[in-house]
Amino acid sequence: MTLADSPFLRACRREPVPHTPVWFMRQAGRSLPEYRKTREGVAMLDSCMRPDLVTEITLQPVRRHNVDAAVYFSDIMVPLKAIGVDLDIKPGVGPVVARPIRSRADLAQLRPLEPGDVSYVTEAVGMVTSELGDTPLIGFAGAPFTLASYLVEGGPSRNHEHTKALMYGDPELWAELLDRLAVITSAFLTVQIEAGASAVQLFDSWAGALAPADYRASVLPASRKVFDAVAHHGVPRIHFGVGTGELLGLLGEAGADVVGVDWRVPLDEAARRVGPGKALQGNLDPAVLFAPREAVETHARRVLDAAAGLPGHIFNLGHGVLPTTDPDALTRLTAYVHEQTAR
Amino acid sequence: MTLADSPFLRACRREPVPHTPVWFMRQAGRSLPEYRKTREGVAMLDSCMRPDLVTEITLQPVRRHNVDAAVYFSDIMVPLKAIGVDLDIKPGVGPVVARPIRSRADLAQLRPLEPGDVSYVTEAVGMVTSELGDTPLIGFAGAPFTLASYLVEGGPSRNHEHTKALMYGDPELWAELLDRLAVITSAFLTVQIEAGASAVQLFDSWAGALAPADYRASVLPASRKVFDAVAHHGVPRIHFGVGTGELLGLLGEAGADVVGVDWRVPLDEAARRVGPGKALQGNLDPAVLFAPREAVETHARRVLDAAAGLPGHIFNLGHGVLPTTDPDALTRLTAYVHEQTAR
Repeated sequence: MTLADSPFLRACRREPVPHTPVWFMRQAGRSLPEYRKTREGVAMLDSCMRPDLVTEITLQPVRRHNVDAAVYFSDIMVPLKAIGVDLDIKPGVGPVVARPIRSRADLAQLRPLEPGDVSYVTEAVGMVTSELGDTPLIGFAGAPFTLASYLVEGGPSRNHEHTKALMYGDPELWAELLDRLAVITSAFLTVQIEAGASAVQLFDSWAGALAPADYRASVLPASRKVFDAVAHHGVPRIHFGVGTGELLGLLGEAGADVVGVDWRVPLDEAARRVGPGKALQGNLDPAVLFAPREAVETHARRVLDAAAGLPGHIFNLGHGVLPTTDPDALTRLTAYVHEQTAR
Repeated sequence: MTLADSPFLRACRREPVPHTPVWFMRQAGRSLPEYRKTREGVAMLDSCMRPDLVTEITLQPVRRHNVDAAVYFSDIMVPLKAIGVDLDIKPGVGPVVARPIRSRADLAQLRPLEPGDVSYVTEAVGMVTSELGDTPLIGFAGAPFTLASYLVEGGPSRNHEHTKALMYGDPELWAELLDRLAVITSAFLTVQIEAGASAVQLFDSWAGALAPADYRASVLPASRKVFDAVAHHGVPRIHFGVGTGELLGLLGEAGADVVGVDWRVPLDEAARRVGPGKALQGNLDPAVLFAPREAVETHARRVLDAAAGLPGHIFNLGHGVLPTTDPDALTRLTAYVHEQTAR
């Protein structure tokens, strides 16, 4: 097997696979004791800027679970921090932005990202991929809407009221904000691809807060700009947001090769919404992993059954691994999917 | 006009109306300065047990906004508190349960509710309805799944992992838990109807966390039991949960006369999913109220357009009023909907 022929990349291209490939969103993270040990005494953003730690953390779940892809360990705020936005990740809270963006003058905080701003990413991706060999590395970035929500609200928000007030109330400023974020995000993904990432995933964590008409008018153009900007590299582009059942077609339309699906929509129905020519990724409810083994397998089997007729399926959870998940349950689940789908 | 002929009740029955009726989920609450004043120094659960305060708070938004219905001021935890479950509502957190339910022995906390346990509800509904005259009062209860989530998690939860672990791991215990909650909820709604409520709304706040197959198998039977238990009173039964786009048909199937829709699904599409014979309620994004007046009206117009062909439409938000909403925006919105739909 070569890297290009790996089950993960074949599935992204909707080619036949020896088994359904598996990875887990947030597989590199708090569910692993070795991760908690590596991170001890190191702040989140600091850990993202140290190639030795990024390499170790990115590889940990590959060693442990036998998953079919690694996902680059980072945080969606890293490119914004790298261009000098005054922000921090507060434990137990999330990203906190010192000067929220609410006016045209505030946009000055957002200059384009140069590769030199994130040389630690180039270095870390190089180190990770040389260790990974034939296992693909998935690059990672937050999508413009989700970044905008943190920047406008000043931190995590349940209702995104300031973000939506800006979006509905000042469409011109909104469009410029999202455009700047698209430029930054494109550069951040390009750095990862040029350093060796075999695929990229754009996380639009909060897109599910939007009605389809608003997503189409006010968000899709910026996400499309990101996907277009990396298209010529030819690596598969994955797009995911939680609670996006109504948006699945639009997430594909924005330019994804693979659409990630949360657990609320069965994959056969998701395929109808996404339409032909796209692979699907998902979609076991991460909370199922807290149930006994038989229940996990019943639900995983249900995911595989719904995906049975699809040309390209990457098994994943329908959202990130929850921090208190038993890691052994993830290892067993990976083995189960591999066994059940071995051809 | 008589109460039975009020626009709200006519719309629930899918009869012609002089204008589209309007009310807002959480219209009685923190968005109003007069509410904050009434509640000063009074804990949430204490306020729910004082008929004078309940009456005042329930009437405040009717006086201020000219809405077409009042909604009984309560909290979904009130019936559980009334039967002796050790719980509190912590400001800024939500309901906190002293002994979470995780085993069969824990079920002993849940005995049936007797009308005498909530005599203050009977009293308050009587006081409210005599003040309201021809304006209908909507009774209110949390649905069994949402109550179960608070009881099993011990408090608010983003991922409901313990709840789902119990649901998937011990279906028998789960079914008994939900059945007991259905009995309690039925009794709580019956008290409100017998005291004079003209309609009831069952809030399944967290149902949107479930995939349709799990909702159908593990939750729908208990919600149906509640709707069946109050059917003979002949008052309209409303069912609502946020993020339930995939569940709209099932929410109706559980026995609702009116299905509440959040802002993610346009009402014409919601009508297709719910099927004939039901009215719809909704569905302006509550965050839109933070935008300028013209944007609010554009979005409200979009809701009315999507509802134009439907036999029964009650205008509402797609979720509760956010606490920092400008109350004048709600008053203006009510007038706008009345004007735009006057026949």
